[in-house]
Amino acid sequence: MSGILYGVGVGPGDPELMTLKAVRLIRENDIIAVPGAEAKETVAYKIAVQAVPELAEKTLLPVYMPMTHDREEMKRNHQKGAELLESYLSRGLNVVFLTLGDPCVYSTYTYLQKLVMDDGFRTELVSGITSFCAAAARLNLPLSEWNEQLHILPAAHHSDAELKDGGNYVLMKSGRKMSQVKELLKNSGRDVYMVENCGMENEHVYHGTEEIPDNAGYYSLIIAKETRKNS
Amino acid sequence: MSGILYGVGVGPGDPELMTLKAVRLIRENDIIAVPGAEAKETVAYKIAVQAVPELAEKTLLPVYMPMTHDREEMKRNHQKGAELLESYLSRGLNVVFLTLGDPCVYSTYTYLQKLVMDDGFRTELVSGITSFCAAAARLNLPLSEWNEQLHILPAAHHSDAELKDGGNYVLMKSGRKMSQVKELLKNSGRDVYMVENCGMENEHVYHGTEEIPDNAGYYSLIIAKETRKNS
Repeated sequence: MSGILYGVGVGPGDPELMTLKAVRLIRENDIIAVPGAEAKETVAYKIAVQAVPELAEKTLLPVYMPMTHDREEMKRNHQKGAELLESYLSRGLNVVFLTLGDPCVYSTYTYLQKLVMDDGFRTELVSGITSFCAAAARLNLPLSEWNEQLHILPAAHHSDAELKDGGNYVLMKSGRKMSQVKELLKNSGRDVYMVENCGMENEHVYHGTEEIPDNAGYYSLIIAKETRKNS
Repeated sequence: MSGILYGVGVGPGDPELMTLKAVRLIRENDIIAVPGAEAKETVAYKIAVQAVPELAEKTLLPVYMPMTHDREEMKRNHQKGAELLESYLSRGLNVVFLTLGDPCVYSTYTYLQKLVMDDGFRTELVSGITSFCAAAARLNLPLSEWNEQLHILPAAHHSDAELKDGGNYVLMKSGRKMSQVKELLKNSGRDVYMVENCGMENEHVYHGTEEIPDNAGYYSLIIAKETRKNS
C-alpha cells in the first residue's frame, strides 16, 4: 500500500504555536519534506526542530521551488517536487511536508498536493496558525468582531481600487511595494498596524503608516482596521 | 502584582488541533474561564479536557454571555463577566480564558478583554486554529492560492450585494438563513462546499448547493471558491 502525503502547517514562527497533531505526525514519521534548497536552512525546519528535536535525525527532503514569474519553470519545479515525494509514497512510506503558517492559505504546497493527488496518492492537510492570526494576537487586537467583514489580500494585489469595501483588511507580504501600499493605506481612513517577522527573533511592530519603513522585510503583514463608531 | 488574563484559542473541535502553548497555559494555571452557563457543558471545555485531562480538577469559571440583540443587556453581561475575571486577577492569579477557534476572529472574548484592559490589567492573546482553516483542511482544499483574495463574512451579512468581488468567500454561521444564502451562492458562479460541526462527532461535508440542507446547524461553515481558469 502507498504512503500518505501529509501537508502540515507549523504556524508562523513561534514553535509553541505548533499543534499537537503537527508534533505527533513529525514524531511518528521518518520522511519529512520542507520547502527550500537546504533542508536545515528552511524556516519551516527551524521552527519545527525547536518543538521536536528528533527531527534533526530524520530523513529530510528539501523541495526547492524558487519564486519565478516563468510559468513553465514553475511547473517543472512542482513536477520535480511531486516526483521526489512520490518516490517515497510509492514505497509505502508516509511523507510529512512542513509548511509555514497554514497549508490552505497561500501555500506553495497545495500545487504539489494537487499533482500528487492526480497521480492517485492519498493526501491529508493539517491546519496551522496563520500569520494574520498570530500578528493580531501579537498586537493584542481582534481581527474582526461582530458583523465586520475580514478581507485577506495577497501581495500581488494592493491596487488603488482596493480597501474601499467595508471591513478590516490583512495585506500579506507587501514588502516590495511598501511606499505604494502606504499611500493606499493613508487614503483608506483605517487604523493601520504592521508586524514584521511575527514570532521570530527580529520581530518588529509598527502602528500608523508614518511608522512603517519603505524597506520593510518580506515577512511583513499589515492589518488595517475600520475605526469603530461605538464599542 | 496582578495576574494576567490569557485569551486562548482551543481550535475548532479536534483536541489535537490545540497548540502547545494552549496546553502549557492550561497546565500551568489554576483558574480557567470558559464561555457558557455550565463550565463542563461548554464546547471549549469539552475540547480542551481531551488534550489536558487535569483541566477537570481546576477552578472553572463559567462566563455566561448569551446571544441577544438588546445592547444594554449584552453590555451588562460583558461587565459582569469582566468583574468575575478581575476578582481573580486582582488577587495576583492568572486567568486562562478558553475560546473556540481563534480569539481574534469573531470571538466574544475580545469584548471582555477590552473591559479588563480598560481597568488596567495585563492581557495576552494566544492564537488558535480557525474554523475556516480546519474546514478547508477537512475538504483537502486550498482556501486561497497565488493572487486570490479571501473574504471572511460573518453571519450578519450574506445579502444580495455580496459575493460579487473577485476571490474566494468563507461564510460563517449561515445556519439560520440557509435558503436565502443558497440562492445567493447559486448566483455567484462559485464552487460551493459546506462543513457542519467540523472536527466534531456529528461532522458532515456537503459539495454543491443542491446537497446543502435548508436546516443546517449553527456551526456550519461555507467555502465558495472561484472556478480557476488554469491550474
